[in-house]
Amino acid sequence: MDTEIPTRPLILISNDDSIDAPGIHHLVECVRAMGDVIVIAPKEPHSGQSAALTVGEPLKIGERPCDTEGVRLFTVDGTPVDCVKLGLDAIVPRKPDLMLCGINHGSNSGTAITYSGTMGAVLEACMEKIPAVGFSLLHHSMKADFTLSTSFVVDIVARVLEKGLPEGVCLNVNIPAKVVPEGIKVCRAAHGHWSEEYKRYLSPSGMPFYWLTGRFVNEEPDADDTDEYWLNRRYISVVPVTPDQTAFAAIRPVEDLLK
Amino acid sequence: MDTEIPTRPLILISNDDSIDAPGIHHLVECVRAMGDVIVIAPKEPHSGQSAALTVGEPLKIGERPCDTEGVRLFTVDGTPVDCVKLGLDAIVPRKPDLMLCGINHGSNSGTAITYSGTMGAVLEACMEKIPAVGFSLLHHSMKADFTLSTSFVVDIVARVLEKGLPEGVCLNVNIPAKVVPEGIKVCRAAHGHWSEEYKRYLSPSGMPFYWLTGRFVNEEPDADDTDEYWLNRRYISVVPVTPDQTAFAAIRPVEDLLK
Repeated sequence: MDTEIPTRPLILISNDDSIDAPGIHHLVECVRAMGDVIVIAPKEPHSGQSAALTVGEPLKIGERPCDTEGVRLFTVDGTPVDCVKLGLDAIVPRKPDLMLCGINHGSNSGTAITYSGTMGAVLEACMEKIPAVGFSLLHHSMKADFTLSTSFVVDIVARVLEKGLPEGVCLNVNIPAKVVPEGIKVCRAAHGHWSEEYKRYLSPSGMPFYWLTGRFVNEEPDADDTDEYWLNRRYISVVPVTPDQTAFAAIRPVEDLLK
Repeated sequence: MDTEIPTRPLILISNDDSIDAPGIHHLVECVRAMGDVIVIAPKEPHSGQSAALTVGEPLKIGERPCDTEGVRLFTVDGTPVDCVKLGLDAIVPRKPDLMLCGINHGSNSGTAITYSGTMGAVLEACMEKIPAVGFSLLHHSMKADFTLSTSFVVDIVARVLEKGLPEGVCLNVNIPAKVVPEGIKVCRAAHGHWSEEYKRYLSPSGMPFYWLTGRFVNEEPDADDTDEYWLNRRYISVVPVTPDQTAFAAIRPVEDLLK
């Protein structure tokens, strides 16, 4: 009888800011002592790409040299979801024990996570039954300081790696910027909407064109069970997220509506 | 005192298959007797674009000639979500009374709606507090026959226009292909995952590249409260959908996990 050789956990890491973003390399540093790490990240930035995937075009895989033992770096010339899908199909030697995404340069809080490429990739791993966590720092700069929250990130990853997550649930973790976090709060996504402020321009020939700006408007700033509330108070927010968007409480009312 | 002039409902229609897809024009025909219609659709196809939006690039609006009274046709050179966002900001004269999306050429059922550009646009309208419904026909062909379900589509739209929808809820309607539907079932999204079957190729120089294929695998084929179940039995499925992806039942377990 063969003796089973103990293997180190396999951790898949992706992001939406591309392989060149500092946030993903900080995340690798946070967790590489816990297992073998395979990074599969977009070749180019893909912020705001949600769960978009590439259909009707081919994808290519690249490998970047990496001197760190137990870490390999791959690129896919597609979206964050493409990285997870194609990575699971063609790159990883076995199903990863954990999938991490980020650390994103910029927030992914409230119901605005619908646009998040970071959470798009996390939801993809979740649907593939891999415990998955997305991390985002509330700071857009490529020079953002990720180190103030390192101990919290390490702790969250270690616990999820050890104990797993409830079935069909992944985590959306947001981290306040420029402070040592006060602690961690598990909460729900604040309801809100993106306040559009497209800036309007005129081309040399007088044709108008538009550039997205705007910001997320929290519609319930006083609700103390939301991510926005606690992020504003210097806490790390952890929202359990499900790929199932069914509004269960609305099934009966909609039945009545269509009766 | 001014007398209020009664206005016809304003209906915003978008899709992800582009302004040139037959499905969107069929949807316009279904509903144009009910109100003024403004179509704002992607200039090019954007299937699988989820709730992706264009950041870091400008957008242009175009208008297509339309002979039908009470119908105007616009294009945006972006994603379905861009169409809704920019349309609400820069095209519509007032907040629409209803937003419709589709009719999509192809299914958007089960938890695979996470990839759906059709539902990305619907969720965007929902977050803007506009009653919104996405329609998808289970047939990918551009020559698909949309007429067999016309009376059902008209009925659903008329009821939502008259009575609205529960707050924070939009509808995902899928329609079986090539049959007169047996009826309508309000249900939940079937849980499943996309079974990857990337086809692998070699370039002339021997470099591998990959093309997405695969299919949605329903993990609970016997559950009689899911969209997949009823679609397989020739019913139209109506799933109430929420932009809030918080897994509420997991908040306490995740608190325990991180304690």
